[in-house]
Amino acid sequence: MPFTPVSAVGEFGLIDRLGHALGQPIDDDLVQGIGDDAAVYRVGEGRVHVVTTDLLVEGVHFDRTFVPMRYLGWKALAVNVSDVAASSASPRWATVGLGLPNNVSVEQLEALYEGLAEACAAFGCTIVGGDTVAAARLHLSITLIGEAAEDAVVYRRGARPGDLLCVTGDLGSAAAGLRVLLSGKQGMEGGSGDGSGGDGAPGDGTEGGGGALPLADFAYAVERQLYPRPRLDRVKHWAERGVRPHALIDVSDGLASEVHHLCRASGVGAVIEGGLIPVHIQTLRAAERFGEDPATFALYGGEDYELLFAIPESLAAGLDSDTFAVVGQVVEAEEGVTLRQPDGEVIPLNPGGFEHFRGPRPE
Amino acid sequence: MPFTPVSAVGEFGLIDRLGHALGQPIDDDLVQGIGDDAAVYRVGEGRVHVVTTDLLVEGVHFDRTFVPMRYLGWKALAVNVSDVAASSASPRWATVGLGLPNNVSVEQLEALYEGLAEACAAFGCTIVGGDTVAAARLHLSITLIGEAAEDAVVYRRGARPGDLLCVTGDLGSAAAGLRVLLSGKQGMEGGSGDGSGGDGAPGDGTEGGGGALPLADFAYAVERQLYPRPRLDRVKHWAERGVRPHALIDVSDGLASEVHHLCRASGVGAVIEGGLIPVHIQTLRAAERFGEDPATFALYGGEDYELLFAIPESLAAGLDSDTFAVVGQVVEAEEGVTLRQPDGEVIPLNPGGFEHFRGPRPE
Repeated sequence: MPFTPVSAVGEFGLIDRLGHALGQPIDDDLVQGIGDDAAVYRVGEGRVHVVTTDLLVEGVHFDRTFVPMRYLGWKALAVNVSDVAASSASPRWATVGLGLPNNVSVEQLEALYEGLAEACAAFGCTIVGGDTVAAARLHLSITLIGEAAEDAVVYRRGARPGDLLCVTGDLGSAAAGLRVLLSGKQGMEGGSGDGSGGDGAPGDGTEGGGGALPLADFAYAVERQLYPRPRLDRVKHWAERGVRPHALIDVSDGLASEVHHLCRASGVGAVIEGGLIPVHIQTLRAAERFGEDPATFALYGGEDYELLFAIPESLAAGLDSDTFAVVGQVVEAEEGVTLRQPDGEVIPLNPGGFEHFRGPRPE
Repeated sequence: MPFTPVSAVGEFGLIDRLGHALGQPIDDDLVQGIGDDAAVYRVGEGRVHVVTTDLLVEGVHFDRTFVPMRYLGWKALAVNVSDVAASSASPRWATVGLGLPNNVSVEQLEALYEGLAEACAAFGCTIVGGDTVAAARLHLSITLIGEAAEDAVVYRRGARPGDLLCVTGDLGSAAAGLRVLLSGKQGMEGGSGDGSGGDGAPGDGTEGGGGALPLADFAYAVERQLYPRPRLDRVKHWAERGVRPHALIDVSDGLASEVHHLCRASGVGAVIEGGLIPVHIQTLRAAERFGEDPATFALYGGEDYELLFAIPESLAAGLDSDTFAVVGQVVEAEEGVTLRQPDGEVIPLNPGGFEHFRGPRPE
């Protein structure tokens, strides 16, 4: 039997292989299985439940050095709420699995749970169960169940050529915030990775050579990284206006990656207008400080937990104009997925994004 | 802020503290939150869903040395099915979270998923989603959603003095199987823990000094450990006979521990008749070989995934007599939880059982 490393097929290749091992699901109540932000099944009376699960592992998704436990609790629930929002549903019930190393105290876990409780109150859901086990590293596994009318759910599939591609909020600031936090950690550790530079104390407003950026100048970006607010407000706005997008996905792995997911599921192509992507001033400043292209943060940064949706212009006109930004257009599949740069040049848009087992692919 | 190690409060103490941090759930559709085998919430039309989650961590719950991946997939789902059965519900939808170290191949994960698929087919449920992340050790996090009529669900609470305490199947054989498998591993590693004894090859029918027991003589016990079959068959039998026990819990951590859970939730006491606990001949033989009391396996062994239930004698008479064994009786809370030994002596029954963060407490 061959031994194929998971890194050779990547996260999405692995999901395909495991889906084949499972076989085709056979259940009349199943509306959507593996392959969208959440699975969807009927519960009767024209209602469906949606379910999503996310694992957060220390050292992969978070660093206890600069992520307070209370924020970690908030974020662990929020990333699941984002998947429920990306189905245009309302979160209801959650379970929490905790893998606990022995250097975590009961008080820290209480802070984690206070963050979970705060998020539950904000998003209207309830933690109903869980499991705790000893583990080498801290990890959280959250499963969230949401509900919706069956005909209100929006999937990744459904985008049609001519639709506008729109996003909520701004993109890239969560990744900029992470870089700022990491620079602070490197500052504490006495250098910027090579053990030599950076004599400025983190957050003191001074800056060592390549070292810590002052947190006060990047408060918005840092908050985006630590305290994401999934876009249930937009889902509610659409419901109030009776507007249903054709296709919908949350932006967790970077816009470039999500556009590809949405296009593949819909059987279409897309043109992203690089000059139209909403970017926060702090993202621009962070990119400048780190000597990077702000488009890298916006397209490949990840963790923004905004929504990307395809919608015909006639329907978009029914929405408040400050609730979204147009970033491109859906085209025929043959045209592929491209990026029109601000200078007018059109180039293929590499999916990039963070992929587990292969790591970040920024180009 | 104090730093209280999790080991100081134990698994159940931790769950209490985290429950307080979450606060009281407020939701009219929630029938049962944290504190039973599964949470229960209404989905309309007199129906409820139940949800349970279990984490399995390499080195804590399983050892890849002697647990084939396909069995691991089966067991990971089966332990959740057991919690759904312990609510007297039918499993429907599952999600799978996978933490993957880089020494696991795609082919091994396909075998794991074939085991999951086999279990899904056997138990009538469907895997609808999941998440995969890189991790230091292999871990699985499964959430299972089941369904039932609201008035059919049975909880841990509800046992009344005078009820019979009954179990399905036999107890202790899964733990005996684990000990046999561990003896085989010690045999492979050249000794029984001290690096000196055990020259018999595992499974060859010979036996080294304190070393490996022959697997062929313990096939039933080993299968109970690797391939548990949760008792949906009994839940179905009860439904067919229109019999609803007063209280119900699955035996995952050992009978002694589960009796205490059921009694605490019901506000009652219990007398367990040591001489009535059903024990398989292979469990007796394994105990003899290891120089242990078979009651230790039966009371504290864990992983049997049988059902413990409290039922009035009049209702029990409506069940096929070979589907359960009476192991004791529910008494008033003041009488506590006791064990009547075969010689007639009555002693307090220590809850024991496996508790995470404190480890096994056999006395």
